[in-house]
Order: sequence, then C-alpha cells, then structure tokens
Amino acid sequence: MNEAELRAELTALHQTLVETALVAWTAGNVSARVADDRFLIKPSGVPYERLTPESMVLCDMDGRPVEDSALKPSSDVFAHAYVYRHRPDIGGVVHTHSTYATAWAARNEAIPCVLTAMADEFGGEIPVGPFAMIGGEDIGKGIVETLEGHRSPAILMRNHGVFTIGGSPRAAVKAAVMCEDVARTVHLSRQLGEPLPLAAGDVDHLYDRYQNAYGQ
Amino acid sequence: MNEAELRAELTALHQTLVETALVAWTAGNVSARVADDRFLIKPSGVPYERLTPESMVLCDMDGRPVEDSALKPSSDVFAHAYVYRHRPDIGGVVHTHSTYATAWAARNEAIPCVLTAMADEFGGEIPVGPFAMIGGEDIGKGIVETLEGHRSPAILMRNHGVFTIGGSPRAAVKAAVMCEDVARTVHLSRQLGEPLPLAAGDVDHLYDRYQNAYGQ
Amino acid sequence: MNEAELRAELTALHQTLVETALVAWTAGNVSARVADDRFLIKPSGVPYERLTPESMVLCDMDGRPVEDSALKPSSDVFAHAYVYRHRPDIGGVVHTHSTYATAWAARNEAIPCVLTAMADEFGGEIPVGPFAMIGGEDIGKGIVETLEGHRSPAILMRNHGVFTIGGSPRAAVKAAVMCEDVARTVHLSRQLGEPLPLAAGDVDHLYDRYQNAYGQ
Amino acid sequence: MNEAELRAELTALHQTLVETALVAWTAGNVSARVADDRFLIKPSGVPYERLTPESMVLCDMDGRPVEDSALKPSSDVFAHAYVYRHRPDIGGVVHTHSTYATAWAARNEAIPCVLTAMADEFGGEIPVGPFAMIGGEDIGKGIVETLEGHRSPAILMRNHGVFTIGGSPRAAVKAAVMCEDVARTVHLSRQLGEPLPLAAGDVDHLYDRYQNAYGQ
Repeated sequence: MNEAELRAELTALHQTLVETALVAWTAGNVSARVADDRFLIKPSGVPYERLTPESMVLCDMDGRPVEDSALKPSSDVFAHAYVYRHRPDIGGVVHTHSTYATAWAARNEAIPCVLTAMADEFGGEIPVGPFAMIGGEDIGKGIVETLEGHRSPAILMRNHGVFTIGGSPRAAVKAAVMCEDVARTVHLSRQLGEPLPLAAGDVDHLYDRYQNAYGQ
Repeated sequence: MNEAELRAELTALHQTLVETALVAWTAGNVSARVADDRFLIKPSGVPYERLTPESMVLCDMDGRPVEDSALKPSSDVFAHAYVYRHRPDIGGVVHTHSTYATAWAARNEAIPCVLTAMADEFGGEIPVGPFAMIGGEDIGKGIVETLEGHRSPAILMRNHGVFTIGGSPRAAVKAAVMCEDVARTVHLSRQLGEPLPLAAGDVDHLYDRYQNAYGQ
Repeated sequence: MNEAELRAELTALHQTLVETALVAWTAGNVSARVADDRFLIKPSGVPYERLTPESMVLCDMDGRPVEDSALKPSSDVFAHAYVYRHRPDIGGVVHTHSTYATAWAARNEAIPCVLTAMADEFGGEIPVGPFAMIGGEDIGKGIVETLEGHRSPAILMRNHGVFTIGGSPRAAVKAAVMCEDVARTVHLSRQLGEPLPLAAGDVDHLYDRYQNAYGQ
Repeated sequence: MNEAELRAELTALHQTLVETALVAWTAGNVSARVADDRFLIKPSGVPYERLTPESMVLCDMDGRPVEDSALKPSSDVFAHAYVYRHRPDIGGVVHTHSTYATAWAARNEAIPCVLTAMADEFGGEIPVGPFAMIGGEDIGKGIVETLEGHRSPAILMRNHGVFTIGGSPRAAVKAAVMCEDVARTVHLSRQLGEPLPLAAGDVDHLYDRYQNAYGQ
C-alpha cells in the first residue's frame, strides 16, 4: 500500500478497535510503516469518531512528525518508532488497554497457552514485558526484547496494557483482537478451576498449520 | 431448501454468529447439507463482512471442494464431513470458540443441567469431547462418538471450542447461541456457590415439552 | 391504551428486551392486560425480529386464545393468566432468562438490597420463588404467593429465570431491565467481598421517594 | 459555550452515557454550568431517547428550576447544585450507577491505582464517599469533602454509584467513562490474584504528563 492507502487503512482499523470494544474514549492507537524511514500514527487525544485519513501523523524513525504535520502524534509514538527501527519485518503496531488482557498485565502474569486458538495465533503464551514510563523509548525496548524469546505477536506491558505487532497494521489489529479474546476466555476458565495445558508438540503443530495452511 | 437458498441462508447465519458475539475475527463456521453427497461450508479465513452466497464452498462428503470452487473451504471441513457421513439426520453443523463455553472446554468440564432452558434445548448436560488436532477427522469422530450418549446438540471440544449440530443449519446456530447463553449463566451461578441440580424426571419432562409442544 | 395501541406497545417492548440483551433467540415474553377478561401475549417460538402487532395473541383469563387467533400463545401463557386473574392491579407481565438474575435463581438465592437503585425500584430484596413446571399454573401461583410478602415487582423462579409485573407492560419491562442491572452489580460486588447492607429505614425512605417523587 | 450550545452538548453527552453502557433505563444524569448562577440538568425520569436540548432544565444555584421550566429537574439536582456552589472551577457533573464502579461502592472500597490509565486520568485511587440520602444536599457535601483530598475527578458514593466532575460536562463524562473502564479492569485483575501497586513517584509522573502533554 502507498501512503494514501495506508492512511485510509489506518482510519478503518481505528474503527475496528472501537467496534471490537478494545478501547475507551481516546485511549489506544494503530501505526503503519510507510517506507524505510516513515510511519503513520494516530494523533494524540483525538476522539475516534473524528479520525480521518488526513489526521494520521507522518513521523520519521525517531518519532518526530515530518515538516507538514498539523497534529501532534500519539504520546506512544516513541514506542512505535523503536519497534520499527529494530524490527524491519514489522509493518504495523497496535496499542490498547483492552480489559481482560490489561487485567493480566496488572498482575504481571503471562497468559498460558491453553486454547487451540492461542496456539494458532500466538504459538505459545502471551508474555509480560516490564513496567516502563510512557513517552520515552523504554516501552519500545521492553516490547522488542521481550518478544525476542516468543512467537507471540502480542505482549502485555506490566500495569499498562497491550502492544501487538504484525507484518501489516491489519495483522497487528487481528493480534490485538485475538489477544483480548483469549485473555477473556482463559481468565474465565481459571475462575472456576485450572485449564488443562496443551502439549508443546501440539502447540507447534497447530501454530505451523495456522500460519501456513489457514486462509486463502 | 435448494442449493441457492442454502447459500443465502448460510450467509445470513454467519451474520447471526457475529451479531450474537459468538465469534472473533475469522474464527468459527457454519455448514449446511445440500444433498446426500454435498454440503456447503464457509471459506477459510475470509472476514465475516465479506461472506456472500457465492463464497460458500461446495464440498463432497470427504470434505473436498467440488470442481468449480474458487475458494478453499474452512480448515474444519473434515470435521463437518465426518459428521454428515455418520449422521444422516444432520442438516447443519456450527463451530465457534464462544467465550464461556470455551472456558468450560479448557477445563475439560461438562456444563451441568441446572436450568430449565438447558433441559429444554439440551435435555441434560453439555458434554466435553476429546482433545483432537484441527485439520483431520479426529474432531468429527470425537463429536459423533461423544454425542451418541447424550441428547445435547452441542459438544465442547477440550481446549478448543464448541460444535453444534441440527436438522438444519438454523437449528445448529440456535444450539450454538443457547449453548453460550447457558454456559455463561451456569458459570456465573457457580462463581458464588453451587447451582441446585434439576431432577432427572423434570429434565425429561421439560425436554419433551420443548421439543414437541413449543413453537408454532 | 386500547387493544391496537397495546399491540404496538408490546411489539416495541419485545424489541426493548432484545436491545437490553435480556433474551436469547426466542426465549422471553411480554404480555399486556387489555380488559378485565382479555390479555395479549407473544406467540410461542417466533423470532423477535418477526414480531408484529398482529402476531400478538389475544387470550382469555384461562390462557386460551380467543377464536380468531392464528398463532399459538407463548407456552408461559398460563403463568401470565394466573397472575392477571389474581392481581387485578397488574397490567403487564414479563418473563426472561436474563443472565445474572438467572444465575442467582439457579442457586435459589434472593438478591439482597445493597444498592440505592434496588431500594428505589424493588423496596427490598428480590425474592426467589419455587421450582415449578413450565406449561401449567404452578409458575403463576409461585409468583403471586411469593410476591405477596415483598414490595418487589420482580421474582426469580428457581432454576428458571425472572418474572416481573407492573401496572403497565412498560413498567414490567422496566422492572426486568432494573432486575438484571442490580443482579449484575450485586453479583460483581460479592465476587470480591461482601456488599454492605442498607438500613431498613433507609430502604423505606428511598422507596417512598422514588415511587412518589421521582419522574414528571 | 452559551446556553443553547450547552443544551445541545448535554443532549449529545447523555447519548454518550447510553452508548458507553453506563446507564440503565432512566438512571444517571449530566449537568453543565451555564453561568455563575445557573446550570442545566437532565429532567427527572425522562427516557434517554426522548431527551432534547429543550428538555434540559435550567436551575439556579439552589437547584430550583427557573421560572419558565416545563419539566422537573433530576432528583439529584441538589447534589449538583452543591458541587457548583462550592467548586467554582467545575463546569460539569455526571452521575451514573455504572456496573463495576458501583460494585466497588457497594463494598465501600476505593479502587487502588494499579494501572497507568488510572494514574493518567485520576492521579491516584478513586475514593469512596459516605452513604447519603438522595434528594438533599448530603450527597453534594460528601462529594466535595471527599474529593478535597484527592486528584481524582471521580468518586464512588457508598451503596449508590458514581459522581464525576470536570472543567466541562464533556470532561466529566470522560471521567465517568474512564472510571467504569478502570473499575472493570482492576476488578477482573483482583479476581485471580493481586494487581501490583504503582510507585507514588510513577503515578505523579504519569499524571503530570497526561494532564499537561497529552492531546492537541
């Protein structure tokens, strides 16, 4: 996609966050890599219903808006920039405070892989990254370092919320939707007992099939 | 219904899964028997909002698309095919990862029959079937064998999700909706104590009335 | 309201049950007294989206459809009839299996009055009535006898669901909406401890104010 | 905003309460200060879908409708009036019985600050105020006195619900939305363990950044 197409795609994906109830008020954001040295991101504090393709803020890889930007980028811009700089395979990043996932994050607890749908999408547990201050690079650093040891495109940041990554912004939004879905199901399952673990070999098999054979 | 009508019906029923919040992203599927040797099923990984009557994939009883199919069928196609081959009374099959039902499935726990609405629709507990790999016939085999000992049109597959069956695809969707509804109510009831059991005779009486006297 | 107006009102109120998520599939029903010897009620097993003013079934006080009825009434018709015969002050009756209220009912537990909103609408606890078979008069009898000792227009029927009554069908629907709302809030409160009781004098004071001074 | 603009704004904000599911039936209300001696508030017991700019009731600072008012104001009018009289910085007040926040209020328990989103918006815990009778000034007094010791624009009133304040009615509605969001997340987190506390210095840092650097 070119920049114009990505601006439209980002606008639509922010509506998906609203429709899937992953965000409240102006919290949360999606970004998309446009080129080696540019990415687009949600403006800071703008209500979802007012977002347009034009309101997405074009930034350089240090998270600074490029010259002709009218709006300030999301205050999470430096976390997104860090991810794009260190992960050239990543085309999209999503951040939410989705309810159940954030409830795990507040306890500093990873979500164990006890569902086939988790093995499919995450290839194992969804890990927790460190507590880090908003507005600097520490969050980005925590994301990249924690995800190195996992197949999961989602990470819970302690006492904060969720970040997801993907080859495209749509893939990252999918990971955010599925992360909340499994966070909720495993939470509920654990309320009345202990969910059974999946065998590591079964997780591998499910992950391989889903990543390679699922879809068109 | 003829094939064209079933294609329209399947499209509408997939929207019902979305409206009743039984599915996330592209997960879940509905199929419909068209004839002794054919059934229609959702294509793999296609977003719900893009499903059309034409996108439903016509398959033979081994789960292979017939010649003129443009799309790949759901990766659960072999489970559906197995059910149709072994249960000639079945006209529709539904699969979801609906949240509360899947929470029971992750613990390998059947849902006890403690509500009149469960006696009505399921005639007893909703059982759990074995853990089985996606993409082969094991899931279908687990469904058919487990449901033999029950009146329930719904089964929880361990660590996975829900399958429901019915004389028509609409009846199977109804069972999927009611399964999640009672899974949620019984879950909540058990959070603060133990729901009272229903007497076996009362379950029989309620089931008979609902199956034979309810409706027009 | 005359019969035509009540048919339109009942149709709208059934949509309110759907919009407030108190019902799943075809479960639940609303009825309205038309005259001393007649009431209107939802037809049995008809999907909510197909209900029209014409589809409401006019019944006599024994729950038998009057001559020109094309559709069978709800299988709960005898419960409604019993209430109308024994409570001439009642103009509307609602039945649902709303989730949280039914979770209390499955444990045979009354909802304690620990919220000002409960004191306002229910004037005390929401009691539980006996287990009773669907399709006869036992449910109606259980409703009338149990509510005699309470100010609450809502009752939980054991292992079954909720019935509410009101001077009009709209008042009964309001009671059904508020019953689920407080059932959920008190459930959640008790999950993490014990809600504080309200003093009996405070409950009386709140109830009197709400019944007499609230509204236009 | 002038009075006409505030009437339109209040009408829209009441719809926001409905869309964000913070209110059931006619419960809840928003008010807006118009001038030093006037504020607008929701009429008592009027359904949300019938609210219009004209139906908002203009009151003086004792909570009495001014001469030309056709509708009675909310029965919470004296609580709002008390807040406006004692807090000249406040331009809007919101009251709801939102589910999770009210569940904390029923136990007389403050919501601990364990999420960055809580530090951002509330600058610490969300406190609980005293039990107070509806219809007088005690609620307003409880709000003002309790919030004196906190940065939070939200307060839980014991056994009752939530009040929020803001420089504008929109800011107060935002606080009501965020209050329910964090009440739910912290509730869920505590169901399966104990959320980690945030360090006081981190809370201060997050609050300062959000209040001063976030947004456009």
